[in-house]
Amino acid sequence: MASTGDLILAWRAPRWHATRMRNILALVALLLSNAANAAPAPADVRIAETLRDRALAESGAFQIVESLTTEVGQRLAGSPAEARARDWAVAKMKALGFRNVHVEPFTIQGWERGAETAEVVAPVPQRLAITALGHSGATPAAGLDAEIVAFTSMAAFREATAEQVRGKIVFITHRMAATQDGSSYGAFNAIRSRAPAMASRLGAAAIVIRSLGTDSHRLPHTGTTIWNAGGPRPPGGRAQDGVSATPIPAAAMSVPDSELLERLLAMGKPVRLHLVLTPRFTGMVQSGNVIGEIPGTQRPDEIVLLGGHLDSWDLGQGAIDDGTGIAVSFAAAKLIADHGPARRTIRVVAWGSEETGLEGGVAYAKAHATDKHILAAEDDFGTGRVWKLDTRVAPGALPTIDAMARVLLPLGIPRGDNNSGYESDLGPLAPTGMPVLGFAQDGTGYFALHHTADDTLDKVDAKALDQTAAAFAAMMWMAANTDERFGPAAPETAR
Amino acid sequence: MASTGDLILAWRAPRWHATRMRNILALVALLLSNAANAAPAPADVRIAETLRDRALAESGAFQIVESLTTEVGQRLAGSPAEARARDWAVAKMKALGFRNVHVEPFTIQGWERGAETAEVVAPVPQRLAITALGHSGATPAAGLDAEIVAFTSMAAFREATAEQVRGKIVFITHRMAATQDGSSYGAFNAIRSRAPAMASRLGAAAIVIRSLGTDSHRLPHTGTTIWNAGGPRPPGGRAQDGVSATPIPAAAMSVPDSELLERLLAMGKPVRLHLVLTPRFTGMVQSGNVIGEIPGTQRPDEIVLLGGHLDSWDLGQGAIDDGTGIAVSFAAAKLIADHGPARRTIRVVAWGSEETGLEGGVAYAKAHATDKHILAAEDDFGTGRVWKLDTRVAPGALPTIDAMARVLLPLGIPRGDNNSGYESDLGPLAPTGMPVLGFAQDGTGYFALHHTADDTLDKVDAKALDQTAAAFAAMMWMAANTDERFGPAAPETAR
Repeated sequence: MASTGDLILAWRAPRWHATRMRNILALVALLLSNAANAAPAPADVRIAETLRDRALAESGAFQIVESLTTEVGQRLAGSPAEARARDWAVAKMKALGFRNVHVEPFTIQGWERGAETAEVVAPVPQRLAITALGHSGATPAAGLDAEIVAFTSMAAFREATAEQVRGKIVFITHRMAATQDGSSYGAFNAIRSRAPAMASRLGAAAIVIRSLGTDSHRLPHTGTTIWNAGGPRPPGGRAQDGVSATPIPAAAMSVPDSELLERLLAMGKPVRLHLVLTPRFTGMVQSGNVIGEIPGTQRPDEIVLLGGHLDSWDLGQGAIDDGTGIAVSFAAAKLIADHGPARRTIRVVAWGSEETGLEGGVAYAKAHATDKHILAAEDDFGTGRVWKLDTRVAPGALPTIDAMARVLLPLGIPRGDNNSGYESDLGPLAPTGMPVLGFAQDGTGYFALHHTADDTLDKVDAKALDQTAAAFAAMMWMAANTDERFGPAAPETAR
Repeated sequence: MASTGDLILAWRAPRWHATRMRNILALVALLLSNAANAAPAPADVRIAETLRDRALAESGAFQIVESLTTEVGQRLAGSPAEARARDWAVAKMKALGFRNVHVEPFTIQGWERGAETAEVVAPVPQRLAITALGHSGATPAAGLDAEIVAFTSMAAFREATAEQVRGKIVFITHRMAATQDGSSYGAFNAIRSRAPAMASRLGAAAIVIRSLGTDSHRLPHTGTTIWNAGGPRPPGGRAQDGVSATPIPAAAMSVPDSELLERLLAMGKPVRLHLVLTPRFTGMVQSGNVIGEIPGTQRPDEIVLLGGHLDSWDLGQGAIDDGTGIAVSFAAAKLIADHGPARRTIRVVAWGSEETGLEGGVAYAKAHATDKHILAAEDDFGTGRVWKLDTRVAPGALPTIDAMARVLLPLGIPRGDNNSGYESDLGPLAPTGMPVLGFAQDGTGYFALHHTADDTLDKVDAKALDQTAAAFAAMMWMAANTDERFGPAAPETAR
């Protein structure tokens, strides 16, 4: 996933005025709902249990992510590799028996990585493991030399003055730790997404940050940055504080290297770096979403939506971000297809260009804003088991959800709350009040691998994928066969 | 440590004929020994216990490895960085109160890393994380393209014919797993040390091996290779099967990349790589051993020897290989120095150029072959706690050793056997019958980090260093104050 909270909230900000109207609609929906009629039929519960148990035994999800990571590998948004991944997804969807398989193309601002090296040149020579952040600017080909000005937190950097920073390399460190719900990423990600533009506006020569990572390997974590509305950010991005910033060289350093830099700074002498970063913007390039369906037998216009994002960062194989999400959603839909269609349409989406700024999610939302999305879920949080089911549905639908969720108890998934966020690519549909399921996965290990070269197939837990696919298949089957409408969902308040 | 077993056995092979004579000497020593007189005096046992407990509370070892990794970092044999490390070691030894501090220089065949990239170009494009093995040959600057010929084990590769291999890139994979005693490294290291020369003689264009590593990170494990006696191997190296081989490009690939390559090969189509490796030999360059002493008060010519190796591979910071060995031996000797000198001399050696072929150990053995080495120990197995004390001493000295070893029981270190090997740099002194202590460290995690970019300070377990320093300080104090001679040790049989 990208810096989801940040980007989604950014996208939704202009639409906040709709909140009050949706709250009224939700109340009306509650008053009109008839929970008894909408509960899943006993026969559909039994089918859901069968799908669940088949998935748990062997969902086929691991084979899908194995195929994607082996036959395609990394698939940077807008790259030829992402185009190969679309071909792969079309072929795989057809092979799995999905219908209406097609690509919905869109264009994005292209960007590609170049050379990237960093060395401490004073007080003692040391090499540092770094990687360019997405949409980073470039140094001259021969690199640049500058002194470090260090900040121990985003809060400290917010106090920085142009006088302190001008002509220097800003270094921001932090103490992000692993959490089960991944919330530490949200707490620290302004260091990556926002600080580069702030450093640019203060006249910094470059910025290097301690990776937003919880591991201790020499593998830095890339990720996207927000520079401005009028510059290289794609449509759907937003201005940062309404002010443009020229991209400067912006890199993440591995955690061990950041700790070394902290020790060198503690020696009390000026620390100078030689930095080479030569990524480049490549103009507008092609991306796209891949869509396939299991058409509904009675209400084909009503859509039960599931998916993951097809693009990945370029450093690894895109296994856990988000090959697993593609695999789980494809496998869950395939289990349903094998059983036979539901009353409503099951739609599977492999979104493109999530990492660079949710461009795939934005494009889907524009193209499908008037579709009847009955219930949606995206899998974009790695390879951990699901440990609870959150939702964001109309209050009147909660009895139906609670009845459906009982099928998940043998998977070790209890019912959570009705305050689920929107997973990455679903965010742009939040203003429509689209109801969502939030399958909360254990993210304790996620940010050790996220956006690094270490995002490879060997990290995938095949049994956890089976459990997740079981949950998706069972819930989506029931959702596609009840009369429940689930929405409109109440809007999220700021997280 | 380097591929110790391999290199040590190589060094000692011509001296095997001395075995019988030493067995006779050992028997004579047993008959003449007087265990009661040689046992450590109660006062010295009490001092040893005090040193042990001080070390356990805070040995200072972590601060030493922190200083070395921060102020010097990597220190490739023969490089300017290794020269800086010698300066660091001289200054540190003097600061710790050691006497007779000096460098004993020697020269080695220099070698340095260049560019290193690898890509699968067919059947699908994928980047691979590789690194040149020590003394690897080079590809053209633009790289080379060739098809892979794969072998699943060293045994399978031994059956390879020139017809199979000529003009191709040999790929050898394996299934090395972690073991507490590190013995799996010995079982697999011919794939790194010997297969490159074999591939060269069969006409291969290059060789890539699955890293000798037990981790799953995109960080390949470098290490030395044995090409021939007359070529770039330094004095002390040996001919491989008496046949010379021209260095060809030889690289290790990370474990996840090797697994990817295995999956691509399993698709059944030819797999081609584009390989760029541009290391170079730099001629004869300077290296050296750094030596310091705590001179004995009564028998200054009798040496109790401890140390580690100062050089490291160039990818990491040389923290666990072998900054920790430097740190533990320096800290243990400092504890003794702070107490006051022993009857015999305590000598601390920071060996140079261990990784590239034990050149430092060979130089030390040549210069000090006639020194009276009473008992010796080297720490070169990472950051794990010591879990038993093995020895290789004259049988007659065992009662003394057993009495001394009781001081280690509160450290959780029981007595092991009398079949200890010689740790890396001590190997070249094995033919003299030098007795050794083998502090067996838990090596379960060692080969996840060994010879990779991940060998950084954050991996060091400060409390385990304290425990190891406690064991070294206590044992070396007692050894330097008894009348026991400990030797001559019986020779090792082939492992």
